[in-house]
Amino acid sequence: MAPPVSRDTLNPKVLQCEYAVRGEIVTIAQRLQDELKAKPGSQPFDEILYCNIGNPQSLSQQPITFFREVLALCDHPAILDKSETQGLFSADAIQRAWQILDQIPGRATGAYSHSQGIKGLRDAIAAGIEARDGFPANPNDIFLTDGASPAVHMMMQLLISSEKDGILCPIPQYPLYSASIALHGGSLVPYYLDEATGWGLEISELKKQLEDAKSKGITVRALVVINPGNPTGQVLAEDNQRAIVEFCKQEGLVLLADEVYQENVYVPQKKFHSFKKISRSMGYGEEDICLVSFQSVSKGYYGECGKRGGYMEVTGFSPEVREQIYKVASVNLCSNISGQILASLVMSPPKVGDESYESYSAEKNRILSSLARRAKTLEDAFNSLEGVTCNKAEGAMYLFPRIRLPQKAIKAAEAAKKAPDAFYCQRLLNATGVVVVPGSGFGQVPGTWHFRCTILPQEDKIPAIVSRLTEFHKSFMAEFHD
Amino acid sequence: MAPPVSRDTLNPKVLQCEYAVRGEIVTIAQRLQDELKAKPGSQPFDEILYCNIGNPQSLSQQPITFFREVLALCDHPAILDKSETQGLFSADAIQRAWQILDQIPGRATGAYSHSQGIKGLRDAIAAGIEARDGFPANPNDIFLTDGASPAVHMMMQLLISSEKDGILCPIPQYPLYSASIALHGGSLVPYYLDEATGWGLEISELKKQLEDAKSKGITVRALVVINPGNPTGQVLAEDNQRAIVEFCKQEGLVLLADEVYQENVYVPQKKFHSFKKISRSMGYGEEDICLVSFQSVSKGYYGECGKRGGYMEVTGFSPEVREQIYKVASVNLCSNISGQILASLVMSPPKVGDESYESYSAEKNRILSSLARRAKTLEDAFNSLEGVTCNKAEGAMYLFPRIRLPQKAIKAAEAAKKAPDAFYCQRLLNATGVVVVPGSGFGQVPGTWHFRCTILPQEDKIPAIVSRLTEFHKSFMAEFHD
Repeated sequence: MAPPVSRDTLNPKVLQCEYAVRGEIVTIAQRLQDELKAKPGSQPFDEILYCNIGNPQSLSQQPITFFREVLALCDHPAILDKSETQGLFSADAIQRAWQILDQIPGRATGAYSHSQGIKGLRDAIAAGIEARDGFPANPNDIFLTDGASPAVHMMMQLLISSEKDGILCPIPQYPLYSASIALHGGSLVPYYLDEATGWGLEISELKKQLEDAKSKGITVRALVVINPGNPTGQVLAEDNQRAIVEFCKQEGLVLLADEVYQENVYVPQKKFHSFKKISRSMGYGEEDICLVSFQSVSKGYYGECGKRGGYMEVTGFSPEVREQIYKVASVNLCSNISGQILASLVMSPPKVGDESYESYSAEKNRILSSLARRAKTLEDAFNSLEGVTCNKAEGAMYLFPRIRLPQKAIKAAEAAKKAPDAFYCQRLLNATGVVVVPGSGFGQVPGTWHFRCTILPQEDKIPAIVSRLTEFHKSFMAEFHD
Repeated sequence: MAPPVSRDTLNPKVLQCEYAVRGEIVTIAQRLQDELKAKPGSQPFDEILYCNIGNPQSLSQQPITFFREVLALCDHPAILDKSETQGLFSADAIQRAWQILDQIPGRATGAYSHSQGIKGLRDAIAAGIEARDGFPANPNDIFLTDGASPAVHMMMQLLISSEKDGILCPIPQYPLYSASIALHGGSLVPYYLDEATGWGLEISELKKQLEDAKSKGITVRALVVINPGNPTGQVLAEDNQRAIVEFCKQEGLVLLADEVYQENVYVPQKKFHSFKKISRSMGYGEEDICLVSFQSVSKGYYGECGKRGGYMEVTGFSPEVREQIYKVASVNLCSNISGQILASLVMSPPKVGDESYESYSAEKNRILSSLARRAKTLEDAFNSLEGVTCNKAEGAMYLFPRIRLPQKAIKAAEAAKKAPDAFYCQRLLNATGVVVVPGSGFGQVPGTWHFRCTILPQEDKIPAIVSRLTEFHKSFMAEFHD
């Protein structure tokens, strides 16, 4: 008898979906790590360096103390009025924990909340958005989620009925988008970012791809913009953002704004502006544009990936569509309460005058300035390699260098049945223990090759990484020289 | 210009999906609660009692101290070696926190974990399953998830390609199943539980419905069994479970075993047996049956709904199918780490001799014995009402009484464009503030009417609830007497 499930009977959308940042290269890395553990010295390196994923705390970034104090107190409120607690926790963390508990019906941190998240926490988030943007935010527009990924899935589920529904996505893109569109059976309509102008987003390209999709019978429902960019690291200029908003308004597209790197901007000449702020500053309100902004506790200076907190701010949709979003959120009951609390904390951190402010702000600045230095060092290192060019990481947590591979390397990759960039990345891993993700997992102009490397390894390790990368690259190029 | 999204352009699967336990009745209750807050005394009751959802801590159930101690320490490990900590936390909680931290690479509780969850925690869970069942469990079969709901969605996503794929579901059922099947575009193939035999599950009924589905061109892929039952509260007998396993094996169906109420059994003559244990005790191994067991931290005596922790144990699938499950899990990166830790704790609680054992076990027994008393009191109360019969709550957290409504009431409901049970439940809410969910949200034999009521209100409130329910029911029956 045939087994109940096989590849042939599985949902073909699942088979089609790919998620490169946890793809084959990571499986190989995990195997190497096991080998290294079982047999120290068996590899030409001492440890695996996971530069495949924006996971700061896995590379020793420490959490912000104030945030963790509040989380611990909310997890175990019984200690809040014990005298020892005052010796262990800062006064404002204790105060904030009380304040949060008072916003939770019955102070029950172990209860399902409202499907959109605890109202008091949404109030704090809305206030944080207002302070950031200078425009009003409505707590009823906030949907708290287990990180940004489930929020993206939720929107794709709403917007996609069949392969006739298209979503405009940047190429290169973060593979969550391609995976989610594949899982929901829609069509990814690509628009190419221009590497030559620092991964510029051209409205003419959006128009061209939109028309092209239309001519194939695809109705484009939404435009995904990732700002700051992932994997590309660029920060959009304000006038570019305005043009994007105008485009969405004119074409009747939902703007899905992935703004999870809003705190990660490393260059003084660029500043993060939310698409909500841009829209409102253009005079566009609820009636004019459908906008979803995604935020996460996993990125920024906080990097709390494991807490799975985040939210989406949903504006411009009709009440009947909102009701459907609410229903889909309800089927999963609610996002985890610690993640909800953390999302409120990152949007309302300690303020000048609070006991924790100085230590909080020192921790934050230390992390962000170190990230900026690491980005620059790695960028310079990549640019010094033969045949490699790398745009500036203005923001986010990644560099996406382009590698020009010798024909012999491309032939060798073909013989090994691998994409040339995957071939390069696997050689790099085997030689150095550094895990980066081939550009083919993000999409790239056909015939060009890239990889994505996070800027997250600890600063004192960067020199060694740079010399390992450089040495590997030289020997790779020498081996395959034309 | 048409708005980018309207009901007409939304995914019709989303429109079709319904989730009664957070449906219309809850929206009405929230409005009444707001009115009550704005205008105390405006309603014939002082508070809304949410008996619509299994959310124990929202009704004042306290979390298990040991679990929360460990969570707090893992959230803020910096205090672990401070002297004040020993005055605030039990010694075994401190020890357990260290042990858990040592299982997390870099002790990073803020990092994304392995897509299936932290290996050391999966080891603990597998050991807990082994201790429960007396059969081996493999940590690589465990997928940690944000509660059981995302795990169910994941399996539905894998198994359902189109409306030609059917899932056998009990009627009445927990509406997560109907919602998830609708969202993924499959067909719910109902099998009716027999109310007359205490919600018995008859194999002949499974066969009949399976054949019926086949004759409609539907390929049934899986059988959902909820044990202990939701909303029905029955605990399956061992020989019944064996027959179910045999049926799945013979018909080539995946057995999806919702076992989230495994700790909630209230009658001495019944005992929970996992389907894995039953299968293995029949001599069926990996090759013989595809089985997924769902567990959650939200239920049991722990009731930690807001923590969103849970796991599924996946056995009997081929490596290539397993790979696809892993990929889908990876797209969401990982479940939240606090939920992961808690899932490991509920499967490996304090043991005899541990410092916390006595207090832990007193807390656990107090909750479970109180739940048993509450179930019995409410069951007796329902059975004493005119025209109402209610099966025993042998397990889970619900009663599902049947109400025989007078014709006049059914007519009145028709006039109000409501299902008769929804009409009754709304009247009940308006008169008493008690929120229960109409049976139509779970499915029921056509022409019969029920509602689901949790057994979770605090014990000292039960007498008042019983008298309010009784008074309401009498006056309702008097009003609509034939």
